[in-house]
Amino acid sequence: MNESQAALSLVTAEESAPRDARQELVDALAEGDLRFHQLPKEMSARRQAEVRRDALSKISGARLDSMGHYPFDDERVSRQNCENFLGAVQVPVGVIGPLRIRGEYVQDEELYVPLATTEGALVASTNRGCRALREAGGAVVRVDNVGITRAPVFRTSGVVETREFIQWLEVNTEEIRRRTEAGSRFLKLLDIRPQAMGTTVFLRFRFDSGDAMGMNMATIACDRVIEDFIEPQTGVECVSLSGNFCVDKKPSHVNFQEGRGKRLFAEVQLDKQILHKVLKTNARALVEVQYRKNLLGSIAAGSLGFNAHFANILAAFFLATGQDPAQVAESAVGVTTIEPRGPEGVIASVYLPDVPLAAVGGGTSLATQQEALALLGVQADSERPGHAVMRLAEILGASVLAGELSLLSALTSRDLARAHEKLGRSGAKS
Amino acid sequence: MNESQAALSLVTAEESAPRDARQELVDALAEGDLRFHQLPKEMSARRQAEVRRDALSKISGARLDSMGHYPFDDERVSRQNCENFLGAVQVPVGVIGPLRIRGEYVQDEELYVPLATTEGALVASTNRGCRALREAGGAVVRVDNVGITRAPVFRTSGVVETREFIQWLEVNTEEIRRRTEAGSRFLKLLDIRPQAMGTTVFLRFRFDSGDAMGMNMATIACDRVIEDFIEPQTGVECVSLSGNFCVDKKPSHVNFQEGRGKRLFAEVQLDKQILHKVLKTNARALVEVQYRKNLLGSIAAGSLGFNAHFANILAAFFLATGQDPAQVAESAVGVTTIEPRGPEGVIASVYLPDVPLAAVGGGTSLATQQEALALLGVQADSERPGHAVMRLAEILGASVLAGELSLLSALTSRDLARAHEKLGRSGAKS
Amino acid sequence: MNESQAALSLVTAEESAPRDARQELVDALAEGDLRFHQLPKEMSARRQAEVRRDALSKISGARLDSMGHYPFDDERVSRQNCENFLGAVQVPVGVIGPLRIRGEYVQDEELYVPLATTEGALVASTNRGCRALREAGGAVVRVDNVGITRAPVFRTSGVVETREFIQWLEVNTEEIRRRTEAGSRFLKLLDIRPQAMGTTVFLRFRFDSGDAMGMNMATIACDRVIEDFIEPQTGVECVSLSGNFCVDKKPSHVNFQEGRGKRLFAEVQLDKQILHKVLKTNARALVEVQYRKNLLGSIAAGSLGFNAHFANILAAFFLATGQDPAQVAESAVGVTTIEPRGPEGVIASVYLPDVPLAAVGGGTSLATQQEALALLGVQADSERPGHAVMRLAEILGASVLAGELSLLSALTSRDLARAHEKLGRSGAKS
Amino acid sequence: MNESQAALSLVTAEESAPRDARQELVDALAEGDLRFHQLPKEMSARRQAEVRRDALSKISGARLDSMGHYPFDDERVSRQNCENFLGAVQVPVGVIGPLRIRGEYVQDEELYVPLATTEGALVASTNRGCRALREAGGAVVRVDNVGITRAPVFRTSGVVETREFIQWLEVNTEEIRRRTEAGSRFLKLLDIRPQAMGTTVFLRFRFDSGDAMGMNMATIACDRVIEDFIEPQTGVECVSLSGNFCVDKKPSHVNFQEGRGKRLFAEVQLDKQILHKVLKTNARALVEVQYRKNLLGSIAAGSLGFNAHFANILAAFFLATGQDPAQVAESAVGVTTIEPRGPEGVIASVYLPDVPLAAVGGGTSLATQQEALALLGVQADSERPGHAVMRLAEILGASVLAGELSLLSALTSRDLARAHEKLGRSGAKS
Repeated sequence: MNESQAALSLVTAEESAPRDARQELVDALAEGDLRFHQLPKEMSARRQAEVRRDALSKISGARLDSMGHYPFDDERVSRQNCENFLGAVQVPVGVIGPLRIRGEYVQDEELYVPLATTEGALVASTNRGCRALREAGGAVVRVDNVGITRAPVFRTSGVVETREFIQWLEVNTEEIRRRTEAGSRFLKLLDIRPQAMGTTVFLRFRFDSGDAMGMNMATIACDRVIEDFIEPQTGVECVSLSGNFCVDKKPSHVNFQEGRGKRLFAEVQLDKQILHKVLKTNARALVEVQYRKNLLGSIAAGSLGFNAHFANILAAFFLATGQDPAQVAESAVGVTTIEPRGPEGVIASVYLPDVPLAAVGGGTSLATQQEALALLGVQADSERPGHAVMRLAEILGASVLAGELSLLSALTSRDLARAHEKLGRSGAKS
Repeated sequence: MNESQAALSLVTAEESAPRDARQELVDALAEGDLRFHQLPKEMSARRQAEVRRDALSKISGARLDSMGHYPFDDERVSRQNCENFLGAVQVPVGVIGPLRIRGEYVQDEELYVPLATTEGALVASTNRGCRALREAGGAVVRVDNVGITRAPVFRTSGVVETREFIQWLEVNTEEIRRRTEAGSRFLKLLDIRPQAMGTTVFLRFRFDSGDAMGMNMATIACDRVIEDFIEPQTGVECVSLSGNFCVDKKPSHVNFQEGRGKRLFAEVQLDKQILHKVLKTNARALVEVQYRKNLLGSIAAGSLGFNAHFANILAAFFLATGQDPAQVAESAVGVTTIEPRGPEGVIASVYLPDVPLAAVGGGTSLATQQEALALLGVQADSERPGHAVMRLAEILGASVLAGELSLLSALTSRDLARAHEKLGRSGAKS
Repeated sequence: MNESQAALSLVTAEESAPRDARQELVDALAEGDLRFHQLPKEMSARRQAEVRRDALSKISGARLDSMGHYPFDDERVSRQNCENFLGAVQVPVGVIGPLRIRGEYVQDEELYVPLATTEGALVASTNRGCRALREAGGAVVRVDNVGITRAPVFRTSGVVETREFIQWLEVNTEEIRRRTEAGSRFLKLLDIRPQAMGTTVFLRFRFDSGDAMGMNMATIACDRVIEDFIEPQTGVECVSLSGNFCVDKKPSHVNFQEGRGKRLFAEVQLDKQILHKVLKTNARALVEVQYRKNLLGSIAAGSLGFNAHFANILAAFFLATGQDPAQVAESAVGVTTIEPRGPEGVIASVYLPDVPLAAVGGGTSLATQQEALALLGVQADSERPGHAVMRLAEILGASVLAGELSLLSALTSRDLARAHEKLGRSGAKS
Repeated sequence: MNESQAALSLVTAEESAPRDARQELVDALAEGDLRFHQLPKEMSARRQAEVRRDALSKISGARLDSMGHYPFDDERVSRQNCENFLGAVQVPVGVIGPLRIRGEYVQDEELYVPLATTEGALVASTNRGCRALREAGGAVVRVDNVGITRAPVFRTSGVVETREFIQWLEVNTEEIRRRTEAGSRFLKLLDIRPQAMGTTVFLRFRFDSGDAMGMNMATIACDRVIEDFIEPQTGVECVSLSGNFCVDKKPSHVNFQEGRGKRLFAEVQLDKQILHKVLKTNARALVEVQYRKNLLGSIAAGSLGFNAHFANILAAFFLATGQDPAQVAESAVGVTTIEPRGPEGVIASVYLPDVPLAAVGGGTSLATQQEALALLGVQADSERPGHAVMRLAEILGASVLAGELSLLSALTSRDLARAHEKLGRSGAKS
């Protein structure tokens, strides 16, 4: 009896005598007679998850009951998001706000933003940043819709064929556009950037993908046009649909330079009062920490992150709103600036060139993540594709700015504390 | 009536007439009369979360019921992990395995590994990689305990003082060690690396932190020794406790070069049979994708990630086991290698120099994350500090290797498909 | 008597009594009564150089006679190329070739190439590479004329003004083109790439500059259009004509990605015989050194130079042909590839994305450098601007390829030596 | 008659009838019957060079007379520095100074520094920087003798052997030291840093090499210890003596982080008067150009050169003093800083972590280069190995600082010019 027959007989048994049948499945998994993906398809996702957890408990001695609590549609999740479904992991969510934003998609609103994190003080600190932004009239935010990229890699016989290939592409761009856009009304080809060295050619396709993050749509569209058109017409072979010149989920200079997904700019001007009262700092100290830490420190480190902790806010926001947390790997690059402005005030900004985001698809469709998006007023509207995700991006930009300001201010407090002591006001946190 | 008085009067009201009092709090939050962190401290975490969710629903129109489902200890979470606590976000968990590992802390065991993800196919694909590793006798894994780093930044008057400062440090290293280690028996100072330019000096402290990730312990120890000893003795001022030469949660060359947290090596030798049967590929195709994508593609992109998708496995593993997902930003750098070995076989490896990990503290103490760690047999033992986290690191290394192998193999299938067509066997996936 | 009066009186003295007057000038320089740039303008360049050398000898005790030997037009040199002119430094020149090149500007010619170097073995080794290329039918070379870039940096009040500024530029590109091109018939504006963060905007102007390297022309054109048009029209202030986003004379990812000056591709296919007979190596060994050194080694080092020694050939070629040796700093980045091809053969290539070059202007007009260019058949023709420099670029590309092949082959000889010993043929260099 | 016989018969002919014989050699070269390295060894270097030039003239039609002028010892040069010797290329030399330096090897001296360049204004501009330094009391300079590095690359069977190999090295470091130091009293092994990934191991040997640049000594020492000790004892094979983790002549993060050759720090404090009178600028403008260009611009560009034009001074200084101009490729990385200091003054510094330098060997032994070194008072003394080159390094550091200050100040003049116009003083350059 092979494995699939084993599963079949077990599920048949289950129908007649559920309790025993279930235990038999558990035993079969625990003893390795059945693999975890071989549970009978007729079984509900919830039941499968229970059987898997029981088997793992039997194997490891660990109890896995807490993972069984989840409010989402596990049939869909186990089909679309997560194979060998076991249950769910829970991440606490806190709220910051009101966060006042003056963007193009969020036009002077005050919003509450959910952050999922286990790092104590992150929510409280970012919330303090929100207060500073609010008292300053809000964060001014702008977002460029750079587009999602996918760069298949091709092999040529050498430089002569490479150049012919690139010339062919230029001539045939419109046909390639027509074909890549045929599969979805939400996918628009923006451009193709070739990059060659030796016998290797990368074609970096850049797409507008509406409210979706777009990686899957882009990959499918590339696959189709390569197989049906580029390869047959040119004879140049595609070695891999992803050639790492995309660049997905890895920090890179090409994304830093050219952007990917959304490119975020958020900025605020803070006067002496706000610096003093809300952020417990002053312009001079803040500018110095920015200079020695975010600029010189990152230069000394050879880092692509000229910022204090973009990653913290990104990860917490991504988790809460159903983004792909693996994309923190690319999104955490970028630059914070703080410059003197006005009498003892500053102008501060964050620049995040590489933030893939989605308002639909992937993790955004889960129950709790849907609630987070609803709270932000982010809801895809097929009449205005892309608007929802641009709104999301503006909110994220302002949130990251709040997080930077608060942490950088906190880092100056050593300085302030010391200054106060010298002034005989020791102990009195201003 | 100021804000805290408002909260007080409301909570007093709650005691006498809970239903109405609660609604009053909801209204006060919704109308901005009360801030979200100003709920009465006497209220339970669960009740506070309900009040916040209700207020946010009132403000935004969004329902936030699903966030109210969570199995963890919300009193502790709201105190230690997440302010302005609202509830939880759920991320689906799947399981891969058995994953056979031959390390120093996992000595030839077969384990089941939970991954939390919403990316369809990730669990199934990585599971295929586990099968390949298993059939090859297991992944050989080694981990270096590099240590956690924190690099405060100092300001000197110039190069002369800088050099005196660095010389003073060398002379006083033992005293600094004594002081930094005084706060915790689990913190050991490994070394201090100075880096100077202009009037700026970074001191990169490197610590062994036992089973904790260690960032907080390290920061506190640095703060104390700077304030009590370094500054008073040298007169050189610390501008910021973190100088971005640490480097925490940002991709960087200094971490790539020197490592941070744990440095992971995992490797396996795969023969022709396993490549063909399990991974549906062959040595030549796999080596070529590795070469053109992971090496040349990442070179072309100026990326620090010479790998296919470390970030995916890292993020899913981090979430499942309670690690800090923001540290995906630094951990996703590293190098995959695949080279021909034996007749039509390969030797494949992954190298991750910068992976902060914890077996205790932070998100590891949540209910579902505790279950995940228990499933892996990862349990801190104060008699053997650091062993649990080294075990966790070995499991992660093997998991990442499984993920790389499977995705890279999948990327070769275009090639295989085409080869099959040429051989007249189109449609038959080998 | 101020300094210029002092010089005047001295030169007057010289006219009447040359010998003494000259000594007086020497003494005045030596004693600091006169600065080295204050010699009388009426004096010939040669005489000024003598006086300066004599004064320096008097000051330092060093003799500087050899510097007095030079065959170039010192009047012009002291006016155009080198202030406080002392004489010349001599760098030995050797010749390699015949170097067979199959390009678009060098259409299957065999050329002799001068290299100026003091590094023993460099000429001999590169010459061996030429022989390999020759026996393989020549190096196939292609060059992209990327153009020279200059990126002034501007200050705006913030993100809103930044975006207006960039939009204004897009609308006014044609007028900017007209104005930048007005100063020289050899300067063509190719495009302007804006890059913004915070209150800072870089505009990366890219120009075709004919046969000149173009940096000066580009800078002057930018200065004019900024002062006359961009600043008055927009009110946005230019902080510096060079904003380091150009990037001139510094290694950078933006140049690696986008190219600068000329982008060079050179390639050759080498069969087993050539590898064995000329390069004393074999395909397997060569591919392995390429892999472990040029790829993995440079990855480990975080280097932008994925090559063995581009810089050596670049520096020697730049010196011989009057290029700016400071631009070695940017030109030495790039990628060598070597892949198996045919039975025990290889295909090898070099890729240099960032090579500013000139056939006219700067050091190309000196006597010896002119001879070197004449030897290469590189002569600017105003009827075909840019052709001469493209020819030069092709010759450089082939030279670099020759240098890479020979050194990489030499590095494999350890391996070969060992292999021979094992085969009992020790001592016999194959 | 083979090629060497041909040469022999020709040289025999030359002895009896020099004129004709010479012409026969010329013809043989021109017609390809003889290769350029096959001239009779009995011929003088000068005569060989003439023959080669004549042959090249015949081939190309170009005259090469100017290359025949050189004052150096061509017998030695053609044997040690440059094969296929043709003659020399001349580069004009100018002088800057007096440059006041307050270092450890140059203890408050005023020096004149030769720079070889064809870039008009470079000498004059750097000279202005010298004046600023002089008026400020001199540049404070410090140099770390990091040491020269060479990193051979090894192949192991995998991670287990790699770790055994590295452990073996640690145990055997003293024996390796003994062996590497045996060949020269000037070579001291400082340390060995291993770096591993997959089956590849780099060993970065770091040496003190006295007054020599040291690359050759280091390579020979590595070769010997590998062949005689490391390989036989461990069975681990060295694939290439250079594994690009050295890193020689390529810009890299490992050198930026750890240094190579000499690490230079130079600094000066400039008051308002000097900024105004000498540099025609002011503190605010200078700090802003530094910030937007050297910091933000280089960040935007992904550059390793956070400076204005290190490469210009490096190249000119390297050429004048006989350094290897190919090493500009690595030396041009580093950081300039300018910060406000005192009333409207600044403190400025340069940091160059990666500058290989020599006071003996290579190009330093040529006639004109010797003169340049003598002018600087740089003369190797075997009783104090390394002192001469440290002196040279300090002079270079101060020169680079002078160059940076002057160019950065010039870049601010747009701003000043404009300010003056606004103040109604247009035309009057302050």
